[in-house]
Amino acid sequence: MTRRFKITVEYDGGPFVGWQRQPNGPSVQQALEEAIEGFSGETPSVQGAGRTDSGVHALAQVAHFDLAKEITPDALQGALNHHLKGWPIAVRAVEGVGEDFHARFSATGRAYLYRILNRRAPAALDEGRVWWVPVALDAQRMQEAAQLLVGHHDFSSFRAAECQANSPEKTLDRLDVARRGEEIEVVAEARSFLHHQVRNMVGTLALVGKGRWPVARVKQALEARDRRAAGATAPPDGLYLTRISYD
Amino acid sequence: MTRRFKITVEYDGGPFVGWQRQPNGPSVQQALEEAIEGFSGETPSVQGAGRTDSGVHALAQVAHFDLAKEITPDALQGALNHHLKGWPIAVRAVEGVGEDFHARFSATGRAYLYRILNRRAPAALDEGRVWWVPVALDAQRMQEAAQLLVGHHDFSSFRAAECQANSPEKTLDRLDVARRGEEIEVVAEARSFLHHQVRNMVGTLALVGKGRWPVARVKQALEARDRRAAGATAPPDGLYLTRISYD
Repeated sequence: MTRRFKITVEYDGGPFVGWQRQPNGPSVQQALEEAIEGFSGETPSVQGAGRTDSGVHALAQVAHFDLAKEITPDALQGALNHHLKGWPIAVRAVEGVGEDFHARFSATGRAYLYRILNRRAPAALDEGRVWWVPVALDAQRMQEAAQLLVGHHDFSSFRAAECQANSPEKTLDRLDVARRGEEIEVVAEARSFLHHQVRNMVGTLALVGKGRWPVARVKQALEARDRRAAGATAPPDGLYLTRISYD
Repeated sequence: MTRRFKITVEYDGGPFVGWQRQPNGPSVQQALEEAIEGFSGETPSVQGAGRTDSGVHALAQVAHFDLAKEITPDALQGALNHHLKGWPIAVRAVEGVGEDFHARFSATGRAYLYRILNRRAPAALDEGRVWWVPVALDAQRMQEAAQLLVGHHDFSSFRAAECQANSPEKTLDRLDVARRGEEIEVVAEARSFLHHQVRNMVGTLALVGKGRWPVARVKQALEARDRRAAGATAPPDGLYLTRISYD
């Protein structure tokens, strides 16, 4: 008999090849699976809700796995964090869930934050945690352009070539751009996203913010359904997975 | 003829032995002096407003130095940041000032922020940037106790043995403790502080927050004028120099 656990995980994506196990370097999934083996001797597969890319951070990634060992959620949290020492990964919460819970397939919403440091001076304390854009960005025009992307659309123009989704159609529930001092924060919410969708939208909005694109061109880029019509992919450093929702 | 420049500097204190040049490792002062030499060939001494310890961060340290090279403040900022690449140091602002300006002696106020991460899970994204206290802290009681330290006092109980100040008497203008979600933030303001004063005050307030000390014991600790009467020094990781004021 095994029992299923849901964990909420924070990590700095910097030292990882991404969430998912890969032969070419350390992944968050591998670090978690080794931590589980470290205290239980068991080797369950850890399923994450979102497969973040290399360098992308998480404040609240969600994952699940099954364990035969009898252990309380509190003790499991302590054991995982103890065995994760040395990695910038922290298990923020643990709860026991039913066998029908699946971190990825049960998820009904995902939220991301993208942080742009918009000042002449490069990042010092936040190096690797923000996208540094030294040219002044107009956050209000970016916010105006962002609203053209909200809704149900074919997002082919903002989809990575390697994207494995069945359809390029997604419903973007929220895309808000706001300035907070030297930073510009972009918040994106949807049931799910295409691969690189948030970073491609941010890279495109930055062209509007710099004044190189008029606001309306974002609508044209969307309607082109062609990746070449939109802006470059923003770097992973500024991206944070902030919330996974379940019913 | 030389001209004096005032610079405002952000840095991650982690990799440094502190602000001040020392033979045993890299300092922020040395990195700045080498950056100046790198683009000007000149070797002026860079005078900082506050000598932060190893591991202590700054959002807005202020320093000054004299330069013979003719250069605009904007060009100077660009040259410094270019030559600081590889160090987590960013020059946020540069202005030309008169010869009577001294970063340290002209300063009329200093402000610090101390960040405590107060949750069961250790820091992941903020490792090295916060003091992790897994035991629940009562921020309201800490705030109550902090008010007993505000005002003009002999702060010998909160002074490091190596402190070089002439007098242990200081006027603490503000010491505010507030919870923001999983974090507790302590803001301290004074004309100047004794060595380790903020970290010693935070370490003492944490004893109150944990319920190990009644609030009133902080007043007794202050009145004892004896370092052994107060709590342990909080780690440097959570401390940020946030503002230097000038008239």
